[in-house]
Amino acid sequence: MSRIAYVNGNYLEFNKSLIHVEDRGYQFADGVYEVINVLNGNLVDYDLHLARLFRSLKELKIKSPINKSTYIYHIKNIIKKNIITDGLIYLQITRGVAPRDHKFPKITKSSIVITGRHLSLDDYELKFKNGIKIITAEDIRWGRCDIKTISLLPNVLAKQDAHIKGASEAWLVNNEGYITEGCASNAWILRKDNTLITHPSNKSILTGITRTSFIKGLKRHSVKFKESKFKIKDIRNAKEAYVTSATQHVTPVVAVNKIKVGNGKPGKFASIFRDVYMEALQLK
Amino acid sequence: MSRIAYVNGNYLEFNKSLIHVEDRGYQFADGVYEVINVLNGNLVDYDLHLARLFRSLKELKIKSPINKSTYIYHIKNIIKKNIITDGLIYLQITRGVAPRDHKFPKITKSSIVITGRHLSLDDYELKFKNGIKIITAEDIRWGRCDIKTISLLPNVLAKQDAHIKGASEAWLVNNEGYITEGCASNAWILRKDNTLITHPSNKSILTGITRTSFIKGLKRHSVKFKESKFKIKDIRNAKEAYVTSATQHVTPVVAVNKIKVGNGKPGKFASIFRDVYMEALQLK
Repeated sequence: MSRIAYVNGNYLEFNKSLIHVEDRGYQFADGVYEVINVLNGNLVDYDLHLARLFRSLKELKIKSPINKSTYIYHIKNIIKKNIITDGLIYLQITRGVAPRDHKFPKITKSSIVITGRHLSLDDYELKFKNGIKIITAEDIRWGRCDIKTISLLPNVLAKQDAHIKGASEAWLVNNEGYITEGCASNAWILRKDNTLITHPSNKSILTGITRTSFIKGLKRHSVKFKESKFKIKDIRNAKEAYVTSATQHVTPVVAVNKIKVGNGKPGKFASIFRDVYMEALQLK
Repeated sequence: MSRIAYVNGNYLEFNKSLIHVEDRGYQFADGVYEVINVLNGNLVDYDLHLARLFRSLKELKIKSPINKSTYIYHIKNIIKKNIITDGLIYLQITRGVAPRDHKFPKITKSSIVITGRHLSLDDYELKFKNGIKIITAEDIRWGRCDIKTISLLPNVLAKQDAHIKGASEAWLVNNEGYITEGCASNAWILRKDNTLITHPSNKSILTGITRTSFIKGLKRHSVKFKESKFKIKDIRNAKEAYVTSATQHVTPVVAVNKIKVGNGKPGKFASIFRDVYMEALQLK
């Protein structure tokens, strides 16, 4: 069976899933997206993803092309049609097709694309077991990183830089020296006083759904946690470090640039934090 | 005759000009573009546009999908097939289609789209005659505005803001209070000492081809000119103000926010500067 995508009202073969060259997503990055994890056939934190999607649309004044209640119908169809057990759903909405002009078109219908993909958990398990390496890169992104837009070129460039240097992710350092987040994940350190910290939720970061659920779990288990900025020098004094994202869940970091985190191996809290996160998930 | 576009090797009817949903231009804004003016059937400053295109591609490490010499062939075909006398060529190149992953794909062929469009000179003439209104907006763009990428969402938002407020363009003000440029044009003021100034060419602005040709003309005619930053307060003391862009050439600005420029009408240098620019054009 060939892969199927949902594109503007139709279920299409993946290689025939096309959009117009004047879609504003293609010419202006004028759109938003979500990546939702599928675990054992269940959508992870679906309600939170949908709420964030609607927030992103509202911030950019893009109309949702379908009713709120219809999303789940098409997403479940994509899971079914592509027989996904473990994988992810990619959902993108743009302002639609219109003659090229920066300002919003008067009349247009927003475009929607939903795709699904299998993802072996083996890759995740390996990264969880060995931990991942991180580099740092200058945070040159725009001023509204809180909106989950497809305007991802700076993230692409930093991620490629990480890849070239043999790392899995780049942590972005702003002009005040603070680590905001990764290219596609949130950044965490466990301080020597056993407090887990991550950058506060503001316009400088995308508030990850995994971050949100993990924090809920941390609170439930009374783990010491604080939204607090940190710098590269704070990593030297950290016991452990982590990234969180929809597909990486809570993954331990063993090195940042040439700095070993702890003893350079995943720390003793890695399994505990993973369990805390897994327990906090909303499955649908 | 229907409109024709060039898309990845084929000449297609415009409404059938499609790209794949996993084109990295659509998912990551991972691409660059050029807009080239066509005047009386001639391409304006073609060599400068092509040189800038290759610089943008190099900065992002995207391979050109066709040889340097082949661009002119396809562009001229688009002009011919669409019978364009006055109008513009839009040319976009992205890193191509690949399974979604931030880092560069190992193997992929860059995508290319060339479209053409008629443009009545009447609209330009009217704006030239009456002058245009400008608003200011916070410059929240990323740190590499010198690359002509399709990552244009902040420009879109500021341009829409201008439109809502009855203005033609937004001048972007950075966190030091300097006006960098417009959403799709460069910004200029004529100081009381008859020196024309515009923001220096660095990572904060896109060095416009119209800007470059205009400067060449200013030098040829020994007009006093300086690359120099300016703030909103400097507009109050300016004699005249201008925007430059491929489709707006040199257009006078009559108001910025509530501030009248000069006496609130196009100044006496408007026609002179337009002539200086027109004379400096490279036509091909």
